[in-house]
Amino acid sequence: MGPHPAVAAIRLAVRRVLHDVLTEHTTPHPTQHPTEHPTQEQPAPLVLVACSGGADSMALASALAFEARKLDIRAGGITVDHGLQDGSDQRAREVADRMTALGLDPVEAITVTVGRDGGPEAAARDARYAALDAAAQRHHATAVLLGHTRDDQAETVLLGLARGSGIRSLSGMAAVSGTARRYRRPFLELDRQTVRKACIAQELAVWDDPHNSDPAYTRSRLRHEGLPALEKALGKGVVEALARTAQLSRDDADALDSWAADAEASVRDEAGRLECAKLFGLPPAVRRRVLRRAVIAEGAPAGSLFARHIEEIDRLITGWRGQGAINLPGRVEARRQGGRLVIRQG
Amino acid sequence: MGPHPAVAAIRLAVRRVLHDVLTEHTTPHPTQHPTEHPTQEQPAPLVLVACSGGADSMALASALAFEARKLDIRAGGITVDHGLQDGSDQRAREVADRMTALGLDPVEAITVTVGRDGGPEAAARDARYAALDAAAQRHHATAVLLGHTRDDQAETVLLGLARGSGIRSLSGMAAVSGTARRYRRPFLELDRQTVRKACIAQELAVWDDPHNSDPAYTRSRLRHEGLPALEKALGKGVVEALARTAQLSRDDADALDSWAADAEASVRDEAGRLECAKLFGLPPAVRRRVLRRAVIAEGAPAGSLFARHIEEIDRLITGWRGQGAINLPGRVEARRQGGRLVIRQG
Repeated sequence: MGPHPAVAAIRLAVRRVLHDVLTEHTTPHPTQHPTEHPTQEQPAPLVLVACSGGADSMALASALAFEARKLDIRAGGITVDHGLQDGSDQRAREVADRMTALGLDPVEAITVTVGRDGGPEAAARDARYAALDAAAQRHHATAVLLGHTRDDQAETVLLGLARGSGIRSLSGMAAVSGTARRYRRPFLELDRQTVRKACIAQELAVWDDPHNSDPAYTRSRLRHEGLPALEKALGKGVVEALARTAQLSRDDADALDSWAADAEASVRDEAGRLECAKLFGLPPAVRRRVLRRAVIAEGAPAGSLFARHIEEIDRLITGWRGQGAINLPGRVEARRQGGRLVIRQG
Repeated sequence: MGPHPAVAAIRLAVRRVLHDVLTEHTTPHPTQHPTEHPTQEQPAPLVLVACSGGADSMALASALAFEARKLDIRAGGITVDHGLQDGSDQRAREVADRMTALGLDPVEAITVTVGRDGGPEAAARDARYAALDAAAQRHHATAVLLGHTRDDQAETVLLGLARGSGIRSLSGMAAVSGTARRYRRPFLELDRQTVRKACIAQELAVWDDPHNSDPAYTRSRLRHEGLPALEKALGKGVVEALARTAQLSRDDADALDSWAADAEASVRDEAGRLECAKLFGLPPAVRRRVLRRAVIAEGAPAGSLFARHIEEIDRLITGWRGQGAINLPGRVEARRQGGRLVIRQG
């Protein structure tokens, strides 16, 4: 008798990602000369799982431990203690012990200091990824697996939608991201319910983060109230539709970004200045991206640049009536001067 | 003392659109020779309002009547009786009388027969637009104003999101649409509350369509449950963010469509067949649009073509392992043959 269908599903998802990792690991990098290390044997690659001890990442840890055994892959685990709750250090040690019990090695519990930048959720995430990056480098890990499910993806798309800043913010989380394609999300197309069933079927002890049901957090409100209400109004396929929107939006945003990168060179004069007449000739979607690139290149921080800033610069091109200079984040200024758009930091 | 701020807001919105209509009406069409009708004077243009008798379209009718008087514009109104409720004919006559009382002329109540295609909401919409198109032609109207607000736009974006079919379905309703740019939506950037306040301030009698609060209708569930829950989770700016997403998505989708139209010629061989190697070289977002165009050109009905169909064809290019022919809606078939993608109707 085979494993429970949910367990089979999570293992298949992890197996696919491990195969990708192995293929990329053994294929020489295109810039590397094939005879560069002709005799040196490569060690078995190490794949880490980032595990909070919650159901999603415990399921991921169990599937990684199981699948790595069958392949020439070493499997380890990292848990991050954000130090935000009493006893979180104790819990991190327990999670580490559970990963060791699954057969993962190395296993590490890392304590981080969470700052304040961008609000509590963003600050915790920044600290967590910095710790994971450092751990991956320290252990020479080829990949770090993350337990985000299709439901997390749907929530991320809705959070992006609430920003109203365009399709890049609708594209959610990537299946592969980070430096050297480090982060992989094997469960991005699996629903949370399947992953949770896999925990129950394997009798895995999991820890429910009280943050996940704390209505003080936007994501928690979305999960427990917003998304269920949306499903009630629109039907059960909403989560899947949001996840598909993420993938399509990501591809669209990538294509438009590459178009804007190409177009930027074509709208500059010989001195490198942006020509308003040429900018006017671009499709609005491409022109706005060119403007955004140009403003960021002059020092405006991407995270502080909103759609309304870009629209205001765009009106120097499409609605010129002698406006003055526009002040932008990062002390960057945009003005129209002699048919040229001049962007510079003050 | 000026009018109530809400009344000022709806009038300003209509005035802007009427100015656009006048400008376009008096500017000769670029393909028309300037001396073609050198002495013939153009009659004052006629602008119609499509009015259900509900608050949004009654506010629109009042603002049109007010603003047209100040410009060289004739203003009329159309109300459509869908014949779906007892007494709807009586109500349509009342709405027509109310429009006449506002000073609109001509005013017409049109009875339509609603079919069944695409569900009750889509069938009613199709019948309504067919009647409005016919009325606009019969009266030689330059434009037809529609009362959709920013809240309607937000609902439309969420309905598109639920389809999960990409950014075109997120782009909501256009401010200008239809043959000869006939339909205009002056209230698309105004919130519903402002428009309703304008009705109260002007003591306009309005009619509440029971469909709008009937939970049997998806849009009604969205309006009364889905969107409020989303606002509770994500904050009050959700409607505005959704409306902005619509505009940005529309521009992005337009740009990518134009790219795909250009790219299509470049990926065909001399005999006009699609070359797989060249298709492979396109960004995925552009390739999928080229495939969609090609399939529709061979007779597949656009409305029956889903993202999963296009993905399956795409795998003939990106995941070729000797698959057989793919059956598509409208008896269209796609197969890979000798490095070419062959799409034809059976």
